[in-house]
Order: sequence, then structure tokens, then C-alpha cells
Amino acid sequence: MAFYNSRAQLVPDMLSGLLSTAAVDRLDTSDGTAVLVRRGHDPQAGVAVISGGGSGHEPAHAGFLGEGMLTAAVPGSLFASPPVSAVLEAIRAVTGTAGCLLIIKNYTGDRLNFGLAAERAREEGLDVRTVLVADDVALPDLDQPRGLAGTVLVHKVAGHLAASGAPLSEVADAAQRTAESLRTIGLAKTPANLPGEDVPSSRGAELGLGIHNEPGAREVVVDGAAGAVQQVLDALDADEVIRGAGQAGVVAMLNDLGGCSPQEGLVLTHELLDRLGRDTVTRFIGPARLMTSLDMHGFSVTLAPASEELIAALDAPTSAPGWVPPSRPQAPQSVEGAGTATGALPVVPDSAEALERTADGGLEDAVVAACRALESAQTELDDLDRAAGDADAGTTFAAGARAVRELVESGQLGFADPAAAMRRIARTLETAMGGSSGVLLAILSTAAGRALDGAEGEARSDWSSALQSGIEAVQHHGGAAEGDRTMLDALIPAQRALAEGDGAVVPARVAEAAESGAEATAALIARAGRAAYVPDSATQGSPDAGAAAVAKLVRALADSLS
Amino acid sequence: MAFYNSRAQLVPDMLSGLLSTAAVDRLDTSDGTAVLVRRGHDPQAGVAVISGGGSGHEPAHAGFLGEGMLTAAVPGSLFASPPVSAVLEAIRAVTGTAGCLLIIKNYTGDRLNFGLAAERAREEGLDVRTVLVADDVALPDLDQPRGLAGTVLVHKVAGHLAASGAPLSEVADAAQRTAESLRTIGLAKTPANLPGEDVPSSRGAELGLGIHNEPGAREVVVDGAAGAVQQVLDALDADEVIRGAGQAGVVAMLNDLGGCSPQEGLVLTHELLDRLGRDTVTRFIGPARLMTSLDMHGFSVTLAPASEELIAALDAPTSAPGWVPPSRPQAPQSVEGAGTATGALPVVPDSAEALERTADGGLEDAVVAACRALESAQTELDDLDRAAGDADAGTTFAAGARAVRELVESGQLGFADPAAAMRRIARTLETAMGGSSGVLLAILSTAAGRALDGAEGEARSDWSSALQSGIEAVQHHGGAAEGDRTMLDALIPAQRALAEGDGAVVPARVAEAAESGAEATAALIARAGRAAYVPDSATQGSPDAGAAAVAKLVRALADSLS
Repeated sequence: MAFYNSRAQLVPDMLSGLLSTAAVDRLDTSDGTAVLVRRGHDPQAGVAVISGGGSGHEPAHAGFLGEGMLTAAVPGSLFASPPVSAVLEAIRAVTGTAGCLLIIKNYTGDRLNFGLAAERAREEGLDVRTVLVADDVALPDLDQPRGLAGTVLVHKVAGHLAASGAPLSEVADAAQRTAESLRTIGLAKTPANLPGEDVPSSRGAELGLGIHNEPGAREVVVDGAAGAVQQVLDALDADEVIRGAGQAGVVAMLNDLGGCSPQEGLVLTHELLDRLGRDTVTRFIGPARLMTSLDMHGFSVTLAPASEELIAALDAPTSAPGWVPPSRPQAPQSVEGAGTATGALPVVPDSAEALERTADGGLEDAVVAACRALESAQTELDDLDRAAGDADAGTTFAAGARAVRELVESGQLGFADPAAAMRRIARTLETAMGGSSGVLLAILSTAAGRALDGAEGEARSDWSSALQSGIEAVQHHGGAAEGDRTMLDALIPAQRALAEGDGAVVPARVAEAAESGAEATAALIARAGRAAYVPDSATQGSPDAGAAAVAKLVRALADSLS
Repeated sequence: MAFYNSRAQLVPDMLSGLLSTAAVDRLDTSDGTAVLVRRGHDPQAGVAVISGGGSGHEPAHAGFLGEGMLTAAVPGSLFASPPVSAVLEAIRAVTGTAGCLLIIKNYTGDRLNFGLAAERAREEGLDVRTVLVADDVALPDLDQPRGLAGTVLVHKVAGHLAASGAPLSEVADAAQRTAESLRTIGLAKTPANLPGEDVPSSRGAELGLGIHNEPGAREVVVDGAAGAVQQVLDALDADEVIRGAGQAGVVAMLNDLGGCSPQEGLVLTHELLDRLGRDTVTRFIGPARLMTSLDMHGFSVTLAPASEELIAALDAPTSAPGWVPPSRPQAPQSVEGAGTATGALPVVPDSAEALERTADGGLEDAVVAACRALESAQTELDDLDRAAGDADAGTTFAAGARAVRELVESGQLGFADPAAAMRRIARTLETAMGGSSGVLLAILSTAAGRALDGAEGEARSDWSSALQSGIEAVQHHGGAAEGDRTMLDALIPAQRALAEGDGAVVPARVAEAAESGAEATAALIARAGRAAYVPDSATQGSPDAGAAAVAKLVRALADSLS
């Protein structure tokens, strides 16, 4: 069972959902059949536009109730025409001296029940016109083509003219012209599953099947979106429609029959516009669910010449919640990137210039030593990482270390301007390391570099504050805290030791702090990063690989600097 | 394969579909990654609002590009975060002196990549704030709840304030407050099917699964819509949310995860509002596809206290095509039926008064005779109907005939006012006969009655013209023509014979015409009515049951009248 309650409750439940959320009232009819009317409609305000038919095609028809579309909707039971009495009561409720138009999909039940209701209403002195929609082209030899999604466009044309104050004859004639101009066909991979029938159908993909699961014109093989759209356009004789439409182009509508994903809708839109030509399609409606068949996994395409009358109606606003405004297809357009082009703030260039070394080269030597230490620890760190995941922490850190070392050794990366150096390191790690740890270290380096950059005088090499800024950024973006068994558990103690020195840093103390922090992670439960998703028992007893890497890095820096 | 072309083409195809139909431009980025920006956005116009993340959640996020929502969207590949460089280029392209807000769903990849991009943009002097959305309540013990559909509400709040000219701090703080107020959980019957993986998942229904098919908090049994909604509301602790919200009530959002039918959406709406209380839900958003997971057959519900700030933002207009305006839930409302109550034209009452007999009672006797003839022919007509369908034509005609005869015999139905008599017959046949033939004969009688009613003097009993009007109505509403093997093939010749008489009707001629017409249907191919759908060979050789019934009726009338 899908998310329905029962077959018997389907229509009442849906009506409750609609009546609870839309500007629609329920008419109390003599036999209890539902008739829905637009809230606040004044029968004397102009021509009323009425449609309806079996339920199961939502949002058709009640979702199109609104100013500029339908005045009343008469839903039947699932896939079954509403009774004559309900149609007649709908007509009586909303029709004034201007009369009403009934828009009828071409199915025998709807024709007859709406037809008799129209005759009876005329007998009562009401001015009633009817228009039949028979837009299906699936069975060219059939004298009575079925009414499909194109019906919604007839609602829009009639509703727009009625809202503009046009007389009934004009509304009905325009609706008739529109109905005659429409060509629709559907293609579905699977038919609709009716509530209470849980055995999936064994029917394959079909071209031209009806919205009540009527068999299609033929079975087809659907091999992706491109082929599906091509088969539909061939069946619609799209080239001929386009030729006939001339300079004005065509209106195209892509209707989801109920079971397409939104992603399929966008892909089908792409294929449809690619094949029809974006210049040819003057207005495009969809992808949207307009005339569905429960969860039928398929779509229909409707084409019509883009007459002025049709375009004006499509572009007009409506309060109907089921309608989707048309778009004007265009070739995808590119714009220039970068804020500078659009007048935003200037961008700091990622310069490839070599960065000057410090006078004594001590910092550069320390960085090279630290990188070598991480490169040597590759296997050890990979092994530590095995418990938590894919045993690549050592490899990742080594890759970043190698890239930074090569920059320093080749004279590209010196630390005379510490801020610039940290920025260069950030870019290098982002590219060379990959993975979460690469991004986290890049965040750390970037934030540290910015802190150094913003500082004045002596503070321009205040590594303690810079590291603090970096740690805060890692915590903010990464979401981990101290004690979560991450590299922060080595970084934070190291920063504290650095800060305690207050100008008289003892490198060995900093290294010891990082090492104790890393060792302590062996007793911690992972609460961030990938290790959080594996059982605690798998990681306990050995330190976190990221924290261990930081400890090795800090130790090598300290040994080299002291 | 669904209506996709391939896994590799999914995102490019979708972007093409969107870029062809929405007011969105593609930014040319250095590495070719897609960045989408709202067309015509001026970076100096105010705070830019940027979001993004893995693709597969459409319309999130690019569908929310528009005035009053997002300024730029950065889609990654399927279910994968976009690279830092793409996010940074998006920031650069749309951010002016007012700065920008990044709205990030709480997944490690998004946090880190958007986070590093934010750090780099700050380094370049841009004012950047970030807000994390972590609205999932599926795993209460998780320190890092996932970001789900509630993210869309954060877009709306931030976009609304940005469009109102609020400064970045105000936009970011409001977005943060909104994010913290949201509670979301999803329930799905089936997980998403990824393109290229055609083997359906064997996973059952799950509560609290993620939008990337992450396993749910627990497997559940889904027994219809009511139970599914109750489980979701229990998991959301809805009663507690409502209590906490107090007089202001709550905002509720029903998000289709991609694979629900529109009918399921309406039923779920009904259940959700029934349980939450229509007075409690100040604004309701959906049912709509807002944050999907391809074709995942499920839904999520988001609840938040209805703060003034949130309501103002939800009610504000936006040009974003993916947004659906909120509704204000209400108890379903009924209105009085019948045009008379609303000032329309007066209604002809279906009077139950007895209709006066003609002076000589000849017509009444003829009608009784005709009815008896049809009743006697029940088996014969049923047999004729067997070839074309369900062998009930005789039964149906006999039922109508019996009802009319009983009215005449009981003194209820006389023909002194022929128009009134035809109307009474129409109502009787509509109710007593049922089926298409009942409606068609009711249409015929109604139209004939109206013709008699509208006539003056002698013409008030011009049966020839009246029958002609009836036939025209049957043709118009029923869609059949002479020669289509229907009752028209007896009616039309009979009417012609009646018209030829020109005041001097020879009843026998009329009967003969009807009989020859009926007999000739044996050679005709059915092209209307149910018989049109059976093989021609099945019906050829025997006359159409409807035409035969008409012939018997006319013959009995003629014999009685002559």
C-alpha cells in the first residue's frame, strides 16, 4: 500500500487535503457528491468555467480552481465520471446570466454525464456551452480521441477570457479553437498502481497509453530519456506541427504522469528542448504534474501552434495552485566569473611568485624537517588509521608534506612574509592532500594566514595567535571539539603551550604537549569525522592518526628550531 | 533505466533543463564546475545568499534561485559536495560590499568545502557568514544532525531579509535562529534508485533515513498514510513542538522526497493537518518537492514554531520557481448549493405533481403499449447485445420501460403538456435505466422536451421537430453519427419518415423506417459506444441491440396510434 489509507478513502482524503489548504469551498449537493467551487465566486461576475471527471488525475481538475482558470470542479470517484446530478448542481451554483462553459475530456462517461447536465441546465434557462477536448494522437484511426493533459491549456484559455469579461460565445469559441489545436501523447514505463492492488503490473513501457491505464498504442523499449522523447515527438509528428506553426513557433507542455522524479523532469526538459529547438518553443510549460494518473511512471508532451490567443492566456496570472507559469526557453547562458568583473571587491591573486626566505633560513629548515618526518611516518600513520577507516591517513599527510617540502626546497616558499607563506601552504594542501584532512588543514592555514596578515608589527609573526585563529576555524567549519578524537586533540594542547611561553617559547614543551594530547586520544571515543561511524571498540587503544600526525609534525619543528 | 541518459550525464542534462527554462545564468568557472547565478543580480544590491551541495535533491538548490531567495547555487555531482574552488567562485561572482551568507547543510563534505571557501573569500576581503542547517531529528544522540528539507526555509528567511535590504549580520542571525528552530524527519517506503543501478533495493520502509540513502533510524511497517504520518509526528515530538510554540502555532512543511504521487501528497496533507490540528498550523507548505532524493518513495515533515520573523519571510513573494507559497490551513468549508441561493437564474423544479392526460388518452395508451413491447423483448435484446458486450441492453431498456409505464398507469404521467411529459420521462430514464443508453435517452428526451416547450401553438406538439432536436443532442453529446451502428440508425430514419408526413403522418411508414434502419445495422461496423472496442467480426450479421430496441418501441407506438 502506498501512502493512501484505502481505495474507498482515497477521494475523500484527497478532497480533505485540498479543502484544508486551497481557497476552495465544498458545495453541499443533494446526494452527497463532492462539487468544489472557487471561494468567493460571484455568479454574476461573468462566464463560469467548469470542468471535472474521474479522480486520480490531480491536480486536475480541482487544483485549477482559481481566478483566471476554473470556477467549479466536479470530481468523480477514482477514474469514474461524476454523476449528472453533481455536474448540474455545479452549474447551478456558479452560473449567472453570463452563462457557463463546460470543458469535457472526451471519454464516453464524461461526455454523456456532462452533456445531460448541460441539457438540463438549458432547460432551466441557463446559458450553457460545452467544449470537448480530444488531444490524444495515440490512435490516429480512432474517431473519438481521448482527452489528455492538453485539457489544462483549454482551462487556461477559457479561464483567462472569462476573467477578462468576455461573453460566453467568445470564451467557448476560443476554448474550442484551443482544443482543436492540441496534440498530446504519453509514454510510460509502468502503468498506474491502483490503491488496493498491490501486485505490480507486468506491462512494459508503452507509447500512447491512456490516463486510466488503457493499453497504449504499442509497447516500446525505453533506453533513457533521449530515446523516450524522440519516440514521443515522432508520434506527435512534431516536425509537421512546427512547420505548420511557422514564425510564431509552438507551445510545448511536459506533463509528469505522476511517477517521474524531479530529476527525470529536468532531463526530459533538456531532451525535449534540444530536439524541438529552444527558438521554436515560444512557451514551455513544465515539467509539472498537471494531468496525472496516480503514480504512473511516465510523461506526456502536448504541442500546439503558439497563437496570440494562446500565448496571452498562458502568460496571464491565475490564483489556481495547480498551474505553473510558462517559461520562455533560451539557450543556456554563461556569464563571466569573479567579483571583479561585476564591480565587487578586488580579489587577492593566487600569485605564483616565489616567496622570500627568512634571513637565517631557520624556519624553512624546520618546515622541511617536519615534512620529512611526516613522509617517513606514512606507514605508521596508515596503520593507525586502519581501525577507523580506509588506512590512508599516512598517505594523505605524506602527500601534503611532500608538496610543501618541494616548494620550500625549490625556493618557491619562504617565510619572510609569514601570512603569505601560510596562504601558499593552504593552497598547496588543498590541492595536494585531498580528503577531509586536506581541507581542514587548508582551513587552518588560511585562517592562520589571515590572522598574521591582519596583525601589526611584532604580532605579524605571532604564531600562537595565528594557530588559535586556525583552530577556531577548524572547530567552526569541521564541527569537532577537543576530546572528539581528532587532530584538534594534539593541536589545542600545542597551541596552549605556545601561548604559555608568552614570547619565551620552549619548543620542547610545545612538542611534549602535542605528543601527550595525541597519546591521550587512544582512550577517547570518536565523535567527529569518519571514525565516528565505526564501533568504539575498533578505535580504542590506539591513538587517532590525525592527532599522531600533528604530534610528529610539531616534534620535528621543535627539534629543528631548538 | 529511468528517464535519464546515464549517470554521467545526469547532472549536465539537469542543468541544461534548468538553464533553458529559468532566469538563471551559468558562471564560467576556471575548472568547468557549474555555478548558477540569478540572472541580472547586482552584487552591490545587498547581501548575497548562496547555497549548494550534492545534486540529486532538485529543486534544491538551483530551483530556489530568484529574487527573495538564493543569489547563487553551487551544485556538486550526484550526492557529492561541490569543490572549494566552485564555491569560492560563486562567492566572488555575487558578493559585493554588503557581503554574503552561505547556507550549508550539515554534511562533512559541505561543511568543509563551503567552510574553506568562506575562509578564502574572507582572506580576499569579502564579508562572509555561514549558517549550518542540522534539522534532522532521526538520530537524537548524534552530535552532528544532518541537514534536510528545513534548509529551504532557511533559504526563504535569508533571501527575504536580503531582498529587504537588511545587513549581513541581521540576515545571518535570522537564518541561524531559523535553522535552530527546525525539526525534520523523513519516512520512505523505498530508497532512491541511483541511475545505472537497476537492481531495486531490498530495503524496507525506514523512518529517519537520509537524503543520500543513508540508513534510517529504524525499519518501520507502513500501513497506509495515517500510520506513516503518526510515526513521523511521534519521532518529531510534535506535541512538544506545539506546546512550545504556544498561541503562535507552528509552521509545517510536507516535502515529497521524489517518488510520491500527487494523490499521496494530498492524502498525507489530510492526515498531517488532521493530527496537528488545522488551527495549530499557522502556515502549511506543500505537499511539494523541495528537497528530494531522486525517486525516493517517501516524504519528510518539518515543524517549526511560527515566529513572526518566519511567517513574514514565508509570506513574502519570490521569483524562485521551486518555491511553493504557504497556505493557511482551515477546516473544509461547505457552501449552499443551487444558483437560486447565489442570485443566479431560477431553477425549474422537478415537480412531483401528476401530469394531466390527453383528452382521448390515445398517446398514453400508445406509450404503455410501447413500454410493454420493450419489456417483452428483454431476452431477445439481451441476446443481441451479447456479441458486443455484457448482454444487458434488453434488461436496461426493460427497466426504463417499466418505470415509464408504471408512471402512466398510476396516473402520474399524462401527455396533455407534451414538454412536461418529456421532461418527466427524461428524469425517469436517467434514474431507472442507468448506463450510457439511459443517459443518452435522457438527453434525447430533455432536448425534445425543450423543443416542445419553446414552440408556440400547433408546434407545441410537433413531434417531428422535437425528435430532431433530441437526435441532434444525442449526436452532439454522444459523438456518434448515422451509420456508426447505434440506436441513431433507427431513430434518424424514423424521424425522417415523421418529417416527410408533413402533418399527415402515416405511423406505419415511420415504424417501417425504424425497422429497416435497425436491420441495416447488421452490416455495419461499430464505431461508437462500447461495441466499437470489440472485433468487427463479433458483431457483424446481427443488428445493434439499441437500434433494435428503438424499432420495437416505434413499431408498438405506431400500431397503437393507427
